[in-house]
Amino acid sequence: MEREIIELFKRHLKLQGDLPLGDDAGAIRLGDEWVVATNDMLVRKTDVPDIMTPEQVGFKAVTMNVSDVAAMGARPVGFLFSLGVPRDIDMDYLEGVAEGISNALKFYGVPVLSADTNEADDLIIDGIALGRTKRLLTRSGARPGDLVCITGDVGRALAGYLVWRHGLEVPEDTKRTLYEKFLEPKARTMEGAVLSDYASAAIDISDGLSKELHLISKMSGVGIEIDGEKLPIREEVLEVTKILKKDPLEIALASGEEFELIFTIHESLMDECPVRCTAIGRVLEGAGVYITIDGKRQEMPVLGWEHLNRGVKGTYREMFR
Amino acid sequence: MEREIIELFKRHLKLQGDLPLGDDAGAIRLGDEWVVATNDMLVRKTDVPDIMTPEQVGFKAVTMNVSDVAAMGARPVGFLFSLGVPRDIDMDYLEGVAEGISNALKFYGVPVLSADTNEADDLIIDGIALGRTKRLLTRSGARPGDLVCITGDVGRALAGYLVWRHGLEVPEDTKRTLYEKFLEPKARTMEGAVLSDYASAAIDISDGLSKELHLISKMSGVGIEIDGEKLPIREEVLEVTKILKKDPLEIALASGEEFELIFTIHESLMDECPVRCTAIGRVLEGAGVYITIDGKRQEMPVLGWEHLNRGVKGTYREMFR
Repeated sequence: MEREIIELFKRHLKLQGDLPLGDDAGAIRLGDEWVVATNDMLVRKTDVPDIMTPEQVGFKAVTMNVSDVAAMGARPVGFLFSLGVPRDIDMDYLEGVAEGISNALKFYGVPVLSADTNEADDLIIDGIALGRTKRLLTRSGARPGDLVCITGDVGRALAGYLVWRHGLEVPEDTKRTLYEKFLEPKARTMEGAVLSDYASAAIDISDGLSKELHLISKMSGVGIEIDGEKLPIREEVLEVTKILKKDPLEIALASGEEFELIFTIHESLMDECPVRCTAIGRVLEGAGVYITIDGKRQEMPVLGWEHLNRGVKGTYREMFR
Repeated sequence: MEREIIELFKRHLKLQGDLPLGDDAGAIRLGDEWVVATNDMLVRKTDVPDIMTPEQVGFKAVTMNVSDVAAMGARPVGFLFSLGVPRDIDMDYLEGVAEGISNALKFYGVPVLSADTNEADDLIIDGIALGRTKRLLTRSGARPGDLVCITGDVGRALAGYLVWRHGLEVPEDTKRTLYEKFLEPKARTMEGAVLSDYASAAIDISDGLSKELHLISKMSGVGIEIDGEKLPIREEVLEVTKILKKDPLEIALASGEEFELIFTIHESLMDECPVRCTAIGRVLEGAGVYITIDGKRQEMPVLGWEHLNRGVKGTYREMFR
């Protein structure tokens, strides 16, 4: 249904900014710089698992937005938000949310520019982040021959969710490592600003690695080949997939809200690029996204979820119940 | 309760943009220009009277935001929005909303930069407008001696609401004139951009003339004196107040979502300022907002409403039932 709604709006709205629609944010040119603006709405009922503290909710509302700015190669320079607040809101909860937003802004070094409250049926935080950059990264700049890279690791957000959802018994250290990513993910704001000078295309992982790779492929008009063995999956994720008898690759490809950056980069720039990352594949002529597992090359399925298809209790419901 | 929530967030968030909080929008400096960003959330259940068509709802979501940009003396240059969409949304209704947004963007000459959908319990349109200007107007620039001016007229939005709410019998022409403002208000985007060169302070009428005047007074640290006889109230508003035995001044002071601009201006600039407007009063040393009615000077009450105090069915419930 999300797709249907997007198509409906696309029919009516010719997107006439200085960029085509479909990127993580909009952008306008000012002199020799770009101003990037992104908005992302967090709805308590559908986006917030019960286990999340209000501080974590507030932190995430900022992270979601500055991550989109980072994916465009911009440095976040301001945050705005609108709150939808139910009449019967617990003020202590709201205070926790405020603290979380405040903590995140300090963490990312971003000032609040404006805030606004409204009555609504459910707690809603609609955040906006502004960023600036001299060179914009988009999803459409990947060129055949480029390397495909990823910051950090993948899979912990979903693995953490599964531990919580199924009440899995795992060592405390494992749980902490997974929950850190599941409940308190951080955006790669430093890396995004630096990649502005190096990358040919970039995207952040909101909906899952496989979905993001398909987007880059489609919007750049290229094929992508991933080496399954190169995916940076941490030991703690393997502990969970072992218990659940799941394929760790599937978890890594489907895990959303990781907020790692996926980027493509010309091979010659790789050595001098100071961003710590893992090369996981290569951009090809043509179309389609492929993954090689045990020497066998196959089409990469689109795993992940669409917001409107998710269950009331949160994420991944269709896939993993 | 809205005030309580705002205080809570103010305690936690030091607003560190290039502007203090409390204006219609946030702003950041880029070279010799300001980039202004505003966000305003429209919630169907609380902000949309049943009589509004979906096209009008979409149009208003844009108007609310570009009006805030205009109030800062900026030219709107981009629009972004997040939609909250209930699962059982009527797709025809949503199509109307899209058309309304599209119409408004054409009307104001503003491109869409980015859009995003989420599941929510109620239809929510959170809009963001970006603007740019060389000289920012704020609420804090009014100086003693300045004239206080207003674009257009005041009172029609609330008068139109009362006609609808109480099913008043008024001539078709009267109804059309009132409903135009009640259901399809337009933002003063041209005027705002021009006033950037002339005004000392500005604000748009979201919550009602009296509330906005109190805000300018407080944030500029000045007094304001209004001449009640100078308020530009149209004949059609008087027709309604006559039927309801209400004071037209009360309607003019309380009527929200008029989206007219109130601004202060040095007297010497008044002649050359090309914006059509009415001078309604003067800025004084000191504090407080006063209104002179029939030669008698009195404190101006704060009329209007806070969003969270409004009734489920819409606006002005406490005041006018």
